[in-house]
Amino acid sequence: MVKAGGGIPRFIPLRLNKTSGKIMSSDWVLDPAELTSLFNSKTKAIIINTPQNPVGKVFTQKELELIADLCKKWNVLCISDEVYEWLVYKPYKHIRIATLPGMWERTITIGSAGKTFSVTGWKIGWAYGPANLMKNLQTVHQNCVYTCCTPLQEAVASGFELEMTRLGQPECYFESLPRELEAKRDYMAKFLSDVGMVPTIPEGGYFMIADWSPLESRVNLEQETDVYKDYRFTKWMSKNVKLQGIPPSAFYNESNKKLAENYVRYCFIKKDENLQKAAEILQAWKASK
Amino acid sequence: MVKAGGGIPRFIPLRLNKTSGKIMSSDWVLDPAELTSLFNSKTKAIIINTPQNPVGKVFTQKELELIADLCKKWNVLCISDEVYEWLVYKPYKHIRIATLPGMWERTITIGSAGKTFSVTGWKIGWAYGPANLMKNLQTVHQNCVYTCCTPLQEAVASGFELEMTRLGQPECYFESLPRELEAKRDYMAKFLSDVGMVPTIPEGGYFMIADWSPLESRVNLEQETDVYKDYRFTKWMSKNVKLQGIPPSAFYNESNKKLAENYVRYCFIKKDENLQKAAEILQAWKASK
Repeated sequence: MVKAGGGIPRFIPLRLNKTSGKIMSSDWVLDPAELTSLFNSKTKAIIINTPQNPVGKVFTQKELELIADLCKKWNVLCISDEVYEWLVYKPYKHIRIATLPGMWERTITIGSAGKTFSVTGWKIGWAYGPANLMKNLQTVHQNCVYTCCTPLQEAVASGFELEMTRLGQPECYFESLPRELEAKRDYMAKFLSDVGMVPTIPEGGYFMIADWSPLESRVNLEQETDVYKDYRFTKWMSKNVKLQGIPPSAFYNESNKKLAENYVRYCFIKKDENLQKAAEILQAWKASK
Repeated sequence: MVKAGGGIPRFIPLRLNKTSGKIMSSDWVLDPAELTSLFNSKTKAIIINTPQNPVGKVFTQKELELIADLCKKWNVLCISDEVYEWLVYKPYKHIRIATLPGMWERTITIGSAGKTFSVTGWKIGWAYGPANLMKNLQTVHQNCVYTCCTPLQEAVASGFELEMTRLGQPECYFESLPRELEAKRDYMAKFLSDVGMVPTIPEGGYFMIADWSPLESRVNLEQETDVYKDYRFTKWMSKNVKLQGIPPSAFYNESNKKLAENYVRYCFIKKDENLQKAAEILQAWKASK
């Protein structure tokens, strides 16, 4: 899309800054020098995603301040994808970059009813920001999307009206959903570790990446012809072990795909019996041969 | 969109070919010489709309054959917007241009659940054509729309399953809806004529354009500042007579907007009591002063 608009996209990956022990998504970091080097007088906008998919990182105040300072120094717009804003595990906190000093006027924040209310098939979301930025977005929206599905917009509005009355209370969906998912997250982390993978424990979202390379000798990667190993791993696993994962290199630009080759992404917003079945499949695979 | 894609858009308007008597949407025609002159070896695609909005024209076999012959002569794609395909009044028949010889392989046909089942707020439609053309459309769809609202897709599928079992029978929605609308159409045509406008009776769709210029002396067009008279007329009517119409010059490119200045578009897919209210408003306006 950046290229279609005549721009030049620059990419910066999160990099894992530890090699042993329990790995949290906060151990995946932007290199401040690398990020700083990507800004210059031609920079128009930065797209960020927090809580982030696929690693599950929830950007800290300090990390967001670095991004904000660069945006302000170079007069850059910030497009902040915060669709997992309500899916954050204790004690981590989601911070909206638009709330940082000087950022409201340069930020468009994107949210999702699909993620907020677990109705991803509804295809309703929102964007907010200052009127001068929204005006351009409205032009694009009018000419690409035209309108959203009105009966489901009404349902989403009703959902918000209910949840706003119980915000901060245990029965509020924005409290109960992450509480419910945290147990699933920990269960998945355990069964992935048990089979020999090295999961990154996500602070937000409902995906978990795991380093599968300790199991490489158990996998016949030659059976698949894809360029990147994570594609070959996930295809082999689907066909031979009957467990479906997503190859995370799909989330990276070409020059960074290598960084994701040893990983697989699993989703843990699943019924407990399905997670248990996944655990059983992996245990049986581990025990075989 | 054509300009954004690096193309040069060319436009051809329907032109009214009679000046007295009852006017049907079939009296609005393409000039064959004008249409032929717009095709050349650089022509990539033509966009047609039948049944057409705002005039309500249902293109005839002969008219579609002219378009098809030009497409085949110059190897041009045809994008055919047929969203009102089921809204055609007897004895007129909708013809899908993709069914003409040699046209399937160069046509993408677009349909709409919103128009087919009168649920325009649902925002679901479809496009079909040969696999080699659909492949490109799927790429755009994947990157712009990603998915449609899945529960409503299921509802539309159920709707089709039901209506296909009673296709051609009076209770089929595709029969009952145009039957119901034809009476509304004729009622609207009468009350517009009664007040002095000259309606074009549409063969398809649920909009009616009418020439309001016989009433120009009753309207204070100077009260509004818009460039085109149809905008001034519709705004003046909304504010002073409390009747809302749509300025049809919005449907024309800049160089043809003048052709639509004397017209207003009204919608007749309305409850009978609301149509009656519109008639009363116009009658009261006519009787005043």
